[in-house]
Parts: sequence; structure tokens; C-alpha cells
Amino acid sequence: MPVSQLVALTMGDPAGIGPETIVGSWEAPVLQARCRRVVIGRVAVLERAVALLGRPLSVERITHLSHVTADPMLIPVWEVGSTEADQVAPGEISAAAGHAASDALLAAVNLALANEVAAIVTAPLNKESLQAAGVRHPGHTEMLAERCHASNVAMMLYLPSGRGQVQGPIGLGVIHATLHIALRNVFVELSQERIVDRCQLATDFAQRMLEARGLHRPARIGVAALNPHGGENGLFGREEIDLIAPAVHAAASAGLPVSGPWPCDTLMHRAAAGEFDAVVAMYHDQGHIALKLLGLHDAVNVTLGLPIIRTSVAHGTAFDIAWQGKANPHSMLQATLTALELAGTRRKN
Amino acid sequence: MPVSQLVALTMGDPAGIGPETIVGSWEAPVLQARCRRVVIGRVAVLERAVALLGRPLSVERITHLSHVTADPMLIPVWEVGSTEADQVAPGEISAAAGHAASDALLAAVNLALANEVAAIVTAPLNKESLQAAGVRHPGHTEMLAERCHASNVAMMLYLPSGRGQVQGPIGLGVIHATLHIALRNVFVELSQERIVDRCQLATDFAQRMLEARGLHRPARIGVAALNPHGGENGLFGREEIDLIAPAVHAAASAGLPVSGPWPCDTLMHRAAAGEFDAVVAMYHDQGHIALKLLGLHDAVNVTLGLPIIRTSVAHGTAFDIAWQGKANPHSMLQATLTALELAGTRRKN
Repeated sequence: MPVSQLVALTMGDPAGIGPETIVGSWEAPVLQARCRRVVIGRVAVLERAVALLGRPLSVERITHLSHVTADPMLIPVWEVGSTEADQVAPGEISAAAGHAASDALLAAVNLALANEVAAIVTAPLNKESLQAAGVRHPGHTEMLAERCHASNVAMMLYLPSGRGQVQGPIGLGVIHATLHIALRNVFVELSQERIVDRCQLATDFAQRMLEARGLHRPARIGVAALNPHGGENGLFGREEIDLIAPAVHAAASAGLPVSGPWPCDTLMHRAAAGEFDAVVAMYHDQGHIALKLLGLHDAVNVTLGLPIIRTSVAHGTAFDIAWQGKANPHSMLQATLTALELAGTRRKN
Repeated sequence: MPVSQLVALTMGDPAGIGPETIVGSWEAPVLQARCRRVVIGRVAVLERAVALLGRPLSVERITHLSHVTADPMLIPVWEVGSTEADQVAPGEISAAAGHAASDALLAAVNLALANEVAAIVTAPLNKESLQAAGVRHPGHTEMLAERCHASNVAMMLYLPSGRGQVQGPIGLGVIHATLHIALRNVFVELSQERIVDRCQLATDFAQRMLEARGLHRPARIGVAALNPHGGENGLFGREEIDLIAPAVHAAASAGLPVSGPWPCDTLMHRAAAGEFDAVVAMYHDQGHIALKLLGLHDAVNVTLGLPIIRTSVAHGTAFDIAWQGKANPHSMLQATLTALELAGTRRKN
């Protein structure tokens, strides 16, 4: 069986819902049919999740990736980290949980960089537990960018086609020019260069997904305006005139299939109806309001600009419902499928 | 037939899609059954719209509102303005069109203030034509506020229940703390007082709509955060701590059924699922991205804080498709129904 079909799933924070979502999505026939999976994490934690959900699955520690079989009722675990992680309390912040999540992520990245797995799919980690463990990065993206020595890296929030209310052939992806910052700082961080970089990443992603579905046409990327009504020719703000339109022009001149800036409310409606494959949003809520309404439980994150394929669930650790058997595994399932689709279009070096 | 069942529809800008949407919604059985309507505008313009859509309707000039009959195939027009308005070209800005729209609006407001009609429903006008006509106000809301001597006035974007993707018993309304301004100026305009005022208007509206549906419970009003993730305790901005949370506290202390600030992406999802009757958004795109995705063609505007009932379509003049028979009349239909529901709950003075 070719290596391209092996996907590594990181366990995420053991106090959160990650392990449950892995177990909850394990038996999905579409995944069973299309890939082999290995969990990077702790055997004991996965065993607890299997018991919690009452599934007829066995968890097995493996010492070599060639031991990953296609047995659908077996969860192979590549064990990393210490036994401390096995005892963390549900929903609680701890250094032990932060270490476990970080160790699993770094081990998975190493496997992907060594081409031993085709892609990695990550369960959520908790920022405060990471901090307690002495990790200086605020989250996955920064850890991945550093480990992979990548500079133009950004997260795409992606709703696959056939899920939620989106009509386009590949679904709908939204990449943000700015993300986890105060709205006030958007005006400081936003730059032409940033917007053009995001246009490039969005195009690369959409083009690969179109290819994965056998569609040989240019992607259609819509760039959002920042102000209401796109600023109405400067009446409600000048960022469209001074910054976004020139960036769209520069990106188009470089051959990217972009248009805009479009007023974001109508852009999102048009994109959901299938007029665009991906959208470049200017700030967090523009994209997240839209994609959560269109398909909260099926949205996934894709880190673009890395030399490896990495997708993740679009939700957090959800400490409030962790280890109660309530976690919805759809995002984990979709994240795994999306990773597989991207792996199928991977440029061979 | 009691006066409460007579609704005045303004023609709007005769170069836009207003007249078409009035004619297009005229024969809707739900409207025929529940109200009488009178159009405030020009007979010749309405006749052109009837001919364009090929409907078997007659347009008749009336000189007294008591002449408005229940004949379903008759469009009674209360004629205002000059013959210049009858000749304006589709999709073009002109002083004549601006005058016609302004004259119709003011006449309708006067009828409502005199209690001769139960509510007014306005078709869209064009800001540039208004300006060309020498009207100094940028739009409907400002003209209405001045004419009615009202100070705490705001527009609610409203998606009625049973329309689009909203689950709550009255649908979902969104009122904005700031609206048609540059995003940069949100930080200047936003104030505790403004947010509390909007909480009051949202509560009044939701309470009336609940009452109209026979639901005797407090409304549930969700107040949006400004920053991503609600600012994450100050990490991504302090407006939640310094401004919005104190405003929510003040509103709740005054007895209003409000909660928040909630991160806006999850708030909109929860509200669409029926957890809130109305949302107070901090700026334009928060509300408009959500409601356009949830039901673009069925959304309506309601002006809150006036002594009269006024609803309007949620779209503009759409000059690009005007007088081509393509205009979607759903918003006009929903705006009329919403006006009727509010009229049914009107507090008698």
C-alpha cells in the first residue's frame, strides 16, 4: 500500500475533545475505504476514549509505521510523550496536557517532513496548557511554520463541497489577511503584500482542490472589502482605494485569478452560491461568521504555505463538554478527507 | 374595514426596481387576505410596471383613502409629485427621480402620523438621485427621524421566521450599534449609551413580534463582541471589557433581557438556531454577512424608534437590473407582512 494513503492524526490536548473526535470518526466507511490512519499520542488516552464511546475498537501501540494495517477495528497509536499525560483531568489546564499535545504535533510533523506519512490531521490543543508547558508559540500554526521553516503561512477555513449550504464544486475556503488580533489592529497589520500573499495561497489551494475533482479551469478567488458597501468610493473608508484594490490589481497582474474588492456581505452570499471557490477576507469575523453559519460542524482548517499537508478540526478543545461523549466528530472526519484530497494532488518533488 | 388594515407602499425611486417589486408582490394571496394597500407615487409609473410584468392588474388614481377597496386586481395610487417622474429612464440618476421618491416618502409619513394608514412600507430610493433633488439627508432613516422628531432611531435587519435558515419563533433581527461608516470610525462612534439604546430598541421589537405570535415570554437579545473570540479577555482588544460588557450590564440592570458580549461568529450561529430573537451587532458587516447568508431575498428592514410603523425592502434600487422584469419581489412581500404584524401589536395611545 503506497505511503500516500497513510495519514497521521495527532491526539491534541488529552483534556479536550480531540481523542473523542478521533474515535468518533474512526469507523466512518468513507475513511476506512480511502486511507490508513495512525494516531500520534497516548495509548491510554485513546483507550479511555474508546471506552467512553463504547465502540468495539482496539487500540494498539505500534513501533514502526509499516505495522499500520488496514484492519478497520484497530486504532494504531505511535506513542509519544510521558505517562503523566494519561492522567490529566477532563477540561483542566495543565502542563502535562500541553506537553502531550506539543509532543504529538512535533512527532507528526517530523513524520510528514520525512515523507513517512502523506498528511497530518491535528486535534485541538489548548493555548493555556501549551503555555503551562513552556511552549512559547500561541498555537499550531506558529509551531508548524517554525518547524517547517516556512514564512508565507496562513490558515484557510474550509467547508468541503456537499457539506452545509455551499454550492461550488470544491466547497468554499476563506483565508484571512489578518486573524487573531484586535479589530483595531487590522488597520496596522493590513498591507498590500499581505493581501497578495493570501491571494497566492488561496489560488494554490483552490487550484489543487479543483484538480483533485478533475476540474481543469482557473480557480475563482474573491477578495473582500474592509468597509461596509466596499467603502462606497471612499465615502465609508479609503482602504479599498488605497490598499485592497491595488493589491487585487497586483495579484491579477501576476496571473492570479482574483477579483475584488467586493462588499463582504454580498461576496459571501455569492461565494456560497458557487460563484467563487475561495475568498480572501480582511479579518477574522468576516470569514468565521460566514463559514460557521454555512456549516459549523463540517468546517475544517487547512494550513497553507507549508511543505507538508496539514489539516485540522475547526473547533477548539471544548473543555466544557470534554469527555462527556458529546463531541461532534464531523469536523475530524472532514479534516481527514480534505487531507486525503490534498495528498492526492501533491506535487512530487 | 378598520384603518389598521390599510398599508401605504411608497413607490421608491422610479428608475429602480421598486415599482416592479410592488406589482410583483401585489397578487400574493397572503397579502390579499390580510390587508388593503395603497401605493403612494405615480399612476403612470405603476402602469408601466404592470405592463412590464404582464399582470392583469388595473392602476387607479384615488383621491381619498376611503376609496381603497378590497378588489384584488386593482392597485390604488395616491398620486404625489410631478409628471417629470413619469419619464425617468431606467437605471439613471436624476433629480426628477429623487424628487418623486422623496415626495412619496413624505406623503406616506404624513398619512401614518395622521393615523390614516396603519403602517408604511418603502421601496428603495437612490442616494445620488436624492442629492440631485437637493435632499440633504443620505437616506430614508434620516428623513424619517427628522420628520417624526425621533432621536433614538435605528434600522433593524430582520429575517422573518419560516424564511431562510432561521429557527427562532419570530425569526431573527439584527440591529447595529454603528452602520454606514468606515470600519475605522467604529472605534470613535461606539459608546455604552449607543449600545444600551440599541438593546432597548431590539427588546421592544422582539417583544412585539413575540406578542404578535402569542408567545408570552421575555425576548432573548444577544449582544455581539467586537473583536475575534470576544477579545479573549483583553488579548485581542479591550472594547469588550471597557465598553460592551458594561453596556450589557447596564441594559440588564435596567431590566432588558440581554446577554453578552458573545463572539459574533458563534453568536450568529446560535441565533440562527433559535437561541436568540435578536442580536445587537457592533458594525455593518457582522449583521449583514449573517442575514444575507441566512435569507438574502426575504430579509427586510424595520425602522425602530419611530412613532409610526415603517418597514422596507432590504435591497437597493438595483439600477443594473431595473425595468427588466428580473426583480425579486420577496423582500417587498415580507416587508408588507412584517408591517402588518407590527400593526397588529400597536400600542393604542
